[in-house]
Amino acid sequence: MSKKAIVILSGGIDSTTLCYQVINDGLNVYPLTFIYGQKHSKEIDSAKRTCNELGLLPNIVDISSLQNLLSGSALTDSDVEIPEVPATVNYYETLKTTIVPNRNAIFLAIAIGYSESIGSNIVYYGAHHSDRGVYPDCRKEFVDAFQIAERIANDNSSLKINAPFIDIEKSEIIKLGNELGVDFSHTWSCYVGGENHCGVCSSCRERKRAFKESGVTDPTVYIK
Amino acid sequence: MSKKAIVILSGGIDSTTLCYQVINDGLNVYPLTFIYGQKHSKEIDSAKRTCNELGLLPNIVDISSLQNLLSGSALTDSDVEIPEVPATVNYYETLKTTIVPNRNAIFLAIAIGYSESIGSNIVYYGAHHSDRGVYPDCRKEFVDAFQIAERIANDNSSLKINAPFIDIEKSEIIKLGNELGVDFSHTWSCYVGGENHCGVCSSCRERKRAFKESGVTDPTVYIK
Repeated sequence: MSKKAIVILSGGIDSTTLCYQVINDGLNVYPLTFIYGQKHSKEIDSAKRTCNELGLLPNIVDISSLQNLLSGSALTDSDVEIPEVPATVNYYETLKTTIVPNRNAIFLAIAIGYSESIGSNIVYYGAHHSDRGVYPDCRKEFVDAFQIAERIANDNSSLKINAPFIDIEKSEIIKLGNELGVDFSHTWSCYVGGENHCGVCSSCRERKRAFKESGVTDPTVYIK
Repeated sequence: MSKKAIVILSGGIDSTTLCYQVINDGLNVYPLTFIYGQKHSKEIDSAKRTCNELGLLPNIVDISSLQNLLSGSALTDSDVEIPEVPATVNYYETLKTTIVPNRNAIFLAIAIGYSESIGSNIVYYGAHHSDRGVYPDCRKEFVDAFQIAERIANDNSSLKINAPFIDIEKSEIIKLGNELGVDFSHTWSCYVGGENHCGVCSSCRERKRAFKESGVTDPTVYIK
């Protein structure tokens, strides 16, 4: 029987491609998707769609009870608007307003608890290089340090946090996903979370740029 | 204004004493209590009672949606019975059935997200020395490693996880609590979670032993 692996699946380009890759590598994927009060809950539908395409049982975990604790982010806080970014502006600065405090560490800690519970030793995490400038929890140093701590916490030196995209750019992930047969029209990036991608939030700007750089046709319907 | 500090407050002897101590040290305490599907939800009532006594606003966070992910523990799983331990048996072995996978790392990760959100840099964690034999996440090595990882995750080198009881025994905590005016009849230890403490689960055994060792009168009503 193939090895069990947890994949944290948001429904975006990176984690969706990751799911395809881990399955391609022959592992038995247990996806894990979080509802944490994000405005762009459309990504949950995308995660479910990917699961259906891949024959995986979606595992949607509602931790939106944490929303009040982790306030101040444009992603979850109704008082903070998702900023629109002109094409000429560096959107990395704007991305900073979208940090949800300690979000990815919380996701990883839960995923590791789940992996211990089902007897898996591997958690896959889709953090990638383009994110490292803004999100400190998308850095290799964090993944390495968190793995050390979690091995101690669970007295399990075999526990692995795999973040295979941590040194590669989003455009490279798109190329890989394209080779693996990912239907990117089924992935979601927009932070606003309307019917279609807004095209002007920092996340849409990055999506557009990454597709352009990758040379892969962008199938996304953008409003602007 | 005094510094803000998060205290993870379960409602047991250790975290209750910790709350008293941190207030005594002059910090502005933000308690955090988790519902995670524990059978002994009586401890939540105890946590609330302590908050009322100390003039703190209880902050009860329901993450029982994680219960299905973190299965296999006698604490949460209805298929696994809380074992009764004869007085002559070493209850440490029995305690192992009560490990909820990665529970304390999950609690700490959430508490750190909360501390970042409210601009506190300190999370207090009541792990103590008597637990270290059974629970790897109650070891100093874990707390140190987790602090390193979380400082990176939040790009915050001032972030502290304080575990002042990590090198002291439960009986010492009881002595300290006694000096600080803790009413131990308002704390809860029993894993079974009936109307009164069962007196024979591993946690009740430890409570009895620690009171005996401390020389402080045990005010607990035990069924057996």
